[in-house]
Amino acid sequence: MTAEIVSVGTELLLGQITDTNAVSLSQALAEAGIACRHRHTVGDNLDRLVAVLQHSLRNADIVITIGGLGPTEDDLTREGISAALEDPLVEDATIAEHLKQLFTQRGIPWLDRQLHQAMRPENSRAVPNPNGTAPGLICEKDGKVVIAMPGPRGEFIPMLNEQIRPYLETLGGGDRIRSRVVKTCGMGESSVEEKVRPLLQGENPTVAPLAHLGEVHLRITGRSPNAAELDSQLNEMEARIRGSLGDSVFGVDDDTLESAVLQMLRERGETVSVAESCTGGLLGGRLTSVPGSSDVFMGGFITYSNEMKVRMLGVPTQILETSGAVSEECAREMAVGCRFETESDWAVSITGIAGPDGGTPEKPVGLVYIGVADAFGTVVVRNHFIGTREDVRRRSTQAALTLLRRTILRGGCASS
Amino acid sequence: MTAEIVSVGTELLLGQITDTNAVSLSQALAEAGIACRHRHTVGDNLDRLVAVLQHSLRNADIVITIGGLGPTEDDLTREGISAALEDPLVEDATIAEHLKQLFTQRGIPWLDRQLHQAMRPENSRAVPNPNGTAPGLICEKDGKVVIAMPGPRGEFIPMLNEQIRPYLETLGGGDRIRSRVVKTCGMGESSVEEKVRPLLQGENPTVAPLAHLGEVHLRITGRSPNAAELDSQLNEMEARIRGSLGDSVFGVDDDTLESAVLQMLRERGETVSVAESCTGGLLGGRLTSVPGSSDVFMGGFITYSNEMKVRMLGVPTQILETSGAVSEECAREMAVGCRFETESDWAVSITGIAGPDGGTPEKPVGLVYIGVADAFGTVVVRNHFIGTREDVRRRSTQAALTLLRRTILRGGCASS
Repeated sequence: MTAEIVSVGTELLLGQITDTNAVSLSQALAEAGIACRHRHTVGDNLDRLVAVLQHSLRNADIVITIGGLGPTEDDLTREGISAALEDPLVEDATIAEHLKQLFTQRGIPWLDRQLHQAMRPENSRAVPNPNGTAPGLICEKDGKVVIAMPGPRGEFIPMLNEQIRPYLETLGGGDRIRSRVVKTCGMGESSVEEKVRPLLQGENPTVAPLAHLGEVHLRITGRSPNAAELDSQLNEMEARIRGSLGDSVFGVDDDTLESAVLQMLRERGETVSVAESCTGGLLGGRLTSVPGSSDVFMGGFITYSNEMKVRMLGVPTQILETSGAVSEECAREMAVGCRFETESDWAVSITGIAGPDGGTPEKPVGLVYIGVADAFGTVVVRNHFIGTREDVRRRSTQAALTLLRRTILRGGCASS
Repeated sequence: MTAEIVSVGTELLLGQITDTNAVSLSQALAEAGIACRHRHTVGDNLDRLVAVLQHSLRNADIVITIGGLGPTEDDLTREGISAALEDPLVEDATIAEHLKQLFTQRGIPWLDRQLHQAMRPENSRAVPNPNGTAPGLICEKDGKVVIAMPGPRGEFIPMLNEQIRPYLETLGGGDRIRSRVVKTCGMGESSVEEKVRPLLQGENPTVAPLAHLGEVHLRITGRSPNAAELDSQLNEMEARIRGSLGDSVFGVDDDTLESAVLQMLRERGETVSVAESCTGGLLGGRLTSVPGSSDVFMGGFITYSNEMKVRMLGVPTQILETSGAVSEECAREMAVGCRFETESDWAVSITGIAGPDGGTPEKPVGLVYIGVADAFGTVVVRNHFIGTREDVRRRSTQAALTLLRRTILRGGCASS
């Protein structure tokens, strides 16, 4: 079973928006065991749209369009599908009724051009769209399937997950392709590769390393017609990777380093607070991005100026004068002061030079000290990050979470 | 002059990566006055790649490929172009020499398969790639142009900007298309549309509204063969929009609300600090994302727990007990306490329920109070945001910056 995707919209061809819908749909096809060999992007032009649809219908069993289903004159996907399938458009009374109700409910004046959205090829059925006005379509004719999906992401994704995925599952039957991403922190890409080298040679599943800012991910991609076998392939490979990399692995797929660290602290019944200079609150922002973080995360201090470091955290003025704000001593005092002020079990501090200006030969842009304090002592690590201001700040929060995690795993500051 | 883009890579078709290169290239084509009518995505398969290239060469004057230029067996773009143009591959001695030097310099062992990257169609020239090994290619044959560009973004973007854009400029000649985004805050989409309605009817330039979280953008898109005329079109329309929307407009294109607010305070010689509960540091993170923010932004408090609100900001326990942490009173006390502790001119506070849990009928998820304090008083605004936890938090920082900006523009808290 093969498919082609046709994304419709002149704004795509002008580079005004990025086609993330096609990415999500590609994943769904791969997971359903349907080979997608060609993706097209075309503008809001009927002749060209019809030509592409005809081409795709010759080459593939399933053609899925994205976009062009709205009520305006630019929305031509229905007409295009009708012409390519040689299947005339008819008005669907149920859709029309539903649209009119929707407009009444929302108190929006009804315009007859909205009825455009109630048209569908004769050999088709509507796919309900609870998040918008235009329904999707599934057209089956002459052994071919054309699926039309709406472009707005808030309509596309729910329709994909709730209705199109299950339908594609019934059509699939070829090799299903599924990926799982195993996430590590605290090791460089080459060290990770060194440790898992034998696993990188495999054919099925394949394992590919991907370096992110401060994390190395290993993407496992399996291929099998059998969903259960695919699962066990992925599970087995994940176990082998964990065996090779030990506690550098902090999670898989949607797991984040912040959620992993919070969970670790939650299990220990411990709390954490932060003191941030160059990251200005980003570390707190990451920790509180996790729902339910309030039982572990107490709060923190954004001490962007020297004055605030003294006033909020009690960093001795002398340290700022002799060692400077970007120094091991300052990071240590920030962590200790933060822990004292909040009475949390752990405190993490970040002080550095994010750039692009403010660097000196002795203290270049990218120099960042990270501190961790617990009841028994402190650990401070010096980092020199490269990249943009944004990169340095992101890497700093990453290094802070990694240092905290490592210190916890090693039994605290005194034994680190 | 017309072009088609062919993105090459099975990982694209599997949805493992998002094709942002094609977006940047589409913009560059539009700006050069070259109409891009079809974008293709194909996998690492020679037959299918050749078929797509032949198809594109029939339909367009220029075909630009992205990816598939590396040294591995999967990298087939050179072979594909050679076959589609019927132009044999030859080894380019200059590229080969350059590659060998590169490997010696980096101390990487030379493998003969690297020489693959020194092959090019006879009627072509190499485009230097200072950020990687594989050069780009410009092939000119039988009145058609094929351009091959590398896939890694760190190689693609510099090559696009430094070499391919100027080359495309020499080929263009049709209507150039350029956009400018005018950004507003503090008004809903329908209010913005109401005020600029006459401008939305224009044919050239067009103006299209785009709602973001807490901002409404107006994208002006102009079309003209003449670059200078295009500039004055955009300038004139920007001036008309500013005339209609007044100080709701905070900037254009890469300007951010945080940079606009910081600049406003900088010009007044004033400072700001923040007290954040549900946003956990995100507002501080946004303000410090702007280089040079340290002359305006003093720092802040992340008071995630009630205890921290009392301890760091002096919020009276009684307020937390009677009105709760998510209340007008608490937001007011947080802003006042923050200003007092930091001695900054302005303080901004955020306290709310980001969700997904923790809501009640009286205080639902999305309820967020924003406070601003100056020397003469306070202003507090109650918001009810919808969306995910991430949306609510982002909208909260947005509303906080908008309220601060408005209060400054209106002459302070006492006159707001």
